[in-house]
Amino acid sequence: MTLIANNRKQGCFITLEGSEGVGKSTNLAFVQQWLEKNGFQPLMTREPGGTPMAEEIRELLLTQRDEDVSEKAELLLMFAARAQHLDEKILPELARGRCVVSDRFTDATYAYQGYARGLNLDWIAQLEQLVQETVRPDLTILLDLSTDVARQRMNKRGTTDRFEQEQAQFFDRVRQGYLVRAKAEPERFAVIDASQALEQVQQDIADVLQRFFDQGD
Amino acid sequence: MTLIANNRKQGCFITLEGSEGVGKSTNLAFVQQWLEKNGFQPLMTREPGGTPMAEEIRELLLTQRDEDVSEKAELLLMFAARAQHLDEKILPELARGRCVVSDRFTDATYAYQGYARGLNLDWIAQLEQLVQETVRPDLTILLDLSTDVARQRMNKRGTTDRFEQEQAQFFDRVRQGYLVRAKAEPERFAVIDASQALEQVQQDIADVLQRFFDQGD
Ligand SMILES: Nc1ncnc2c1ncn2[C@@H]1O[C@H](COP(=O)(O)OP(=O)(O)O)[C@@H](O)[C@H]1O
Ligand SMILES: Nc1ncnc2c1ncn2[C@@H]1O[C@H](COP(=O)(O)OP(=O)(O)O)[C@@H](O)[C@H]1O
Ligand SMILES: [Mg+2]
Ligand SMILES: [Mg+2]
Repeated sequence: MTLIANNRKQGCFITLEGSEGVGKSTNLAFVQQWLEKNGFQPLMTREPGGTPMAEEIRELLLTQRDEDVSEKAELLLMFAARAQHLDEKILPELARGRCVVSDRFTDATYAYQGYARGLNLDWIAQLEQLVQETVRPDLTILLDLSTDVARQRMNKRGTTDRFEQEQAQFFDRVRQGYLVRAKAEPERFAVIDASQALEQVQQDIADVLQRFFDQGD
Repeated sequence: MTLIANNRKQGCFITLEGSEGVGKSTNLAFVQQWLEKNGFQPLMTREPGGTPMAEEIRELLLTQRDEDVSEKAELLLMFAARAQHLDEKILPELARGRCVVSDRFTDATYAYQGYARGLNLDWIAQLEQLVQETVRPDLTILLDLSTDVARQRMNKRGTTDRFEQEQAQFFDRVRQGYLVRAKAEPERFAVIDASQALEQVQQDIADVLQRFFDQGD
């Protein structure tokens, strides 16, 4: 199967998306193992964050604070972290032909700041254009799960950040936002039923990855 | 002279601009005194910063670091701090009819990130529109000074931040950028020769403020 890696001339950019507690971090490790078994040396990363400075911006975003956070400030901080992550880490690695896998990317901004917080989707599109120019993920794996079940899984984790303390309705809107985006770009998105047992979720992910690299040949 | 304040129904938004070491902070105190003598209770503030969260973003921007800072990340952080400052502090105060005076605002972004760093001016204009919508300063006092003299004044201050360690050419471009903007909007800008003795600079500022409030009646 290492032929797959050798046949591709360009790096690949894969993102994992979904609301809190759907299993992104759990399955990121699985994606990494799958890629390594298939001859890639993937760079695993996450958003917001991914470089020391972008992680500082993440801290700023996730800290619970007395001061209200302007919705526009939140949106701009997300894209500031993304610009740093792209310019200083993702783009140089893609240029070297490496596969980059990120726990969240711009679809999360559409889902959280756009669909859930209600910020203007055109602003997000403008910022996406400014920061990413033509760069988009090649494949986005969306883990879809009801808000109730995701909550139950999350509660096992303990501490909550500024997003995790939002109400269930907020996460319903996040989920629906992701599904709207997946429907609009079916070639890029693979939607996976994350309510299944972990083994089945991972079997589905393996199938998606296999199909993705078969097509790329 | 307190009539001036009573006659104005709206708040006023005044900004002080100019490269490093031209005397913005020194003269901010003078503007405050002048406004207080004339019956205002101005809110004095600065950028980047002005609220606790925006000051955290300022820290992030000014810290010297090993990691290269993406130009787009820098630009977006500036506007993130500005959005927070506007939404959580400046706009509520203007809405209450107060005068707000800021040490730097968006003209600094055009001068530093645009003219000096060479970032696309259209991006800055797009972000200005997104963050400020129709809000612009009513009056901008530009302190203009040769880079050499500004350097000499700055050296007296000791420590340098990520911007202050740039080369003289950078500050020449900052200065020219400010002058281009002043020329394009002569009604909003008052350009003051900051090479003069401090007393004369302050006399000029007092004249500018007097004219500004006389017009507003
Ligand atoms: N398919 C699954 N079935 C049951 N529990 C799961 C499944 N996938 C993940 N989990 C558990 O759910 C919790 C949240 O998973 P995590 O990967 O941290 O989610 P996310 O990164 O999307 O917020 C963890 O405790 C994880 O072990
Ligand atoms: N007109 C002036 N003549 C001489 N020195 C000045 C004058 N205005 C300010 N200074 C001095 O120049 C230095 C820089 O002034 P500062 O107000 O900190 O500049 P900025 O805030 O624009 O960087 C300070 O030491 C200040 O006392
Ligand atoms: Mg996670
Ligand atoms: Mg100063």
